[in-house]
Amino acid sequence: MPSISKRGQQVPLSPFRKLAPLAEKAKAAGKHVYHLNIGQPDILTPPEALQQVQQANLKILEYSPAEGFLSYRKKLCEYYARFDVELNYEQVIVTTGASEAIQLVLLSCLNQGEEILAPEPFYANYNGFAHIADVQVCAITCDIETGFALPDAAAFERCLTPRTKAIFITNPNNPTGTFYGREVLEGLALLAKAYDLYLIVDEVYREFCYDGQPFFSALNLEGAEENVIVIDSVSKRYSACGARVGAVVTRNQAVLDAVSLYAKLRLSPPTLGQIVAEAAIDIGEAYLHEVKAEYDRRRMVVYNRLQQMPGVTSYLPGGAFYCFARFPIADADDFCQWLLSDFEYRGATVMLSPGAGFYATPGLGKDEVRIAYVLNVHDLEAAMDCLEEALRVYPGRLTETLIDEAIPAWG
Amino acid sequence: MPSISKRGQQVPLSPFRKLAPLAEKAKAAGKHVYHLNIGQPDILTPPEALQQVQQANLKILEYSPAEGFLSYRKKLCEYYARFDVELNYEQVIVTTGASEAIQLVLLSCLNQGEEILAPEPFYANYNGFAHIADVQVCAITCDIETGFALPDAAAFERCLTPRTKAIFITNPNNPTGTFYGREVLEGLALLAKAYDLYLIVDEVYREFCYDGQPFFSALNLEGAEENVIVIDSVSKRYSACGARVGAVVTRNQAVLDAVSLYAKLRLSPPTLGQIVAEAAIDIGEAYLHEVKAEYDRRRMVVYNRLQQMPGVTSYLPGGAFYCFARFPIADADDFCQWLLSDFEYRGATVMLSPGAGFYATPGLGKDEVRIAYVLNVHDLEAAMDCLEEALRVYPGRLTETLIDEAIPAWG
Repeated sequence: MPSISKRGQQVPLSPFRKLAPLAEKAKAAGKHVYHLNIGQPDILTPPEALQQVQQANLKILEYSPAEGFLSYRKKLCEYYARFDVELNYEQVIVTTGASEAIQLVLLSCLNQGEEILAPEPFYANYNGFAHIADVQVCAITCDIETGFALPDAAAFERCLTPRTKAIFITNPNNPTGTFYGREVLEGLALLAKAYDLYLIVDEVYREFCYDGQPFFSALNLEGAEENVIVIDSVSKRYSACGARVGAVVTRNQAVLDAVSLYAKLRLSPPTLGQIVAEAAIDIGEAYLHEVKAEYDRRRMVVYNRLQQMPGVTSYLPGGAFYCFARFPIADADDFCQWLLSDFEYRGATVMLSPGAGFYATPGLGKDEVRIAYVLNVHDLEAAMDCLEEALRVYPGRLTETLIDEAIPAWG
Repeated sequence: MPSISKRGQQVPLSPFRKLAPLAEKAKAAGKHVYHLNIGQPDILTPPEALQQVQQANLKILEYSPAEGFLSYRKKLCEYYARFDVELNYEQVIVTTGASEAIQLVLLSCLNQGEEILAPEPFYANYNGFAHIADVQVCAITCDIETGFALPDAAAFERCLTPRTKAIFITNPNNPTGTFYGREVLEGLALLAKAYDLYLIVDEVYREFCYDGQPFFSALNLEGAEENVIVIDSVSKRYSACGARVGAVVTRNQAVLDAVSLYAKLRLSPPTLGQIVAEAAIDIGEAYLHEVKAEYDRRRMVVYNRLQQMPGVTSYLPGGAFYCFARFPIADADDFCQWLLSDFEYRGATVMLSPGAGFYATPGLGKDEVRIAYVLNVHDLEAAMDCLEEALRVYPGRLTETLIDEAIPAWG
């Protein structure tokens, strides 16, 4: 029997994937599971955009050009113009979701063994994409006590190695919901220019910035045109995760050339998804406005409820639809398993993503979880009731003394 | 300015990609271009399958499970049963086209630096997928004089190295249209078992086997269950290239596990494409029967016309919708460029894929081209008129003496 590849056995998994069988078991036993672990929103996709698939009246479901339909690339430029970003369509390459965009960018920009520097906690699948490209994700640690604000430039400089090729951030951040404003980005751009690094910014949550904070795209960083590469996707902004339509956006011609070569290999991004995505750009502003208001309401529910739970540390996330929380427990993996296997409150329980999987540094995030607020306010309140009760009765809950003793281990 | 990766500059391109700008120029100048270079069929997608997208009446365009919709995986098992292949749905992982299926299989089965052995000429993008996985495609040469029949087992054995991990064939073959029957596959299975190799068979053209030859799936190779991995796609059989829906099919659990890990990283194959693909399996037999009959008519047009052209070598391809031809010319790259830039017959010209790009061995295929018969019979006759005239007037046409002299260089 031929042997499997070593790398095929070492693919890093998303933090909640191993909990999935436990959730299935809980549901089979009649327990309701509130899913706060995933990034699949419950928001309706714009109906006009979905209808466009039938109105297009296709006779042959053909390949699109490898870089995406010309009409869609041009329409995307109109969309970016709303954020004062001026582009021509050749600077936009359509991909099969942000997942593929990241992979093509890593392959295009980094050789085997080179490194990207990302603030941790970070979206766990970045590890997997790096694994495929045979590169490393190195982490600069952020702290829940500061709402995961980015460390200063000097801290970044200390993390650079001769193999560092790019700084990679998600803005607003998944998994922390942290929002990075113009000054933060300008600081990163200075670093990128000083050290000849790519500045790769995953902006898939750009529509969801709260508290009146204006989103500032990395594509507007003057003088860093050769450094900046933006990752995009329609999955979250139009609740169209299944469209599998993302993009690589950059003004760096060499990157565009390389990404385009890789894109040609796999022939075409999904045709039907592109039709939905193109139509979605033309729907009224009201849709995105309402979706953002809905997430904002949910954000406040999660924030307020967490603030009221004894021993829980959290913060008001500025964007996206995630936040992190620190619980008075020793091991969030154990807690999340216990929630699914041993806990029930009013016939329900809650599924969370254990925090450690979002950190590259061993030992960090063990008492933290990511919460995705992808349920309506009513369900979210019920989920928070579950969580509050769970933290109250959890046999592994640390007492105040134990927490104080445990703190040095977190440091 | 940060530097692009070395690999990003070395992505191997499909043989016809560099001709594309010349084709655009020809069209801009008012010339009609008969595209015999691509695998995009002109056949209608089953309308019932396309309609299913609207009948599904989706409210949220959600991710599917990473391995594909359960209902589609089960439906695919029904489809494979038509070829007497018994599978359960867990042995089928849905991918974003065959392109992704091949990439996930290479990553799962081969470590960096290992090799696959493939008969040449082979589908040129295999080189690109191997490039991404950092593995090598090694070639065993087939000859147009025998209709690209596979060499015998001893010849295969001579090509194996300590790094060979898999034999990779496409059945029926792209780019040659060669059909491999049961005995050929049984021979390869013996080799695979004897040397502990994977036998990866790309079966995306399985519906198109002519002359009454029955298709024999590698999944029916008894005793080779751990070796066989089948690559599949709906692109060609339902003329649904833009759906981007393929599959990895195997009974090897370790391979399924690894492919599933990689699949989870990119979250989901396209949802809308899967809806079309699932519905297509339920359409009547008449569609596939008629499509095959149509390709068969085209095949005979191409075969008969090539047979009548002086100095041209070809053969009757047994499957798919491609054939190779050897022309009395020194360099098919030059000829294909000349066709687009300098030639015109009745206001039209023809675009072909130069043969050399389908070979790994330098120097081979320089006087060969691939012809994809993806046009209706009427247009195909007109395209063959163009080609016949072009070969007659081409300034670089070799005389009989020159051909004889050139033969040693091809050997």
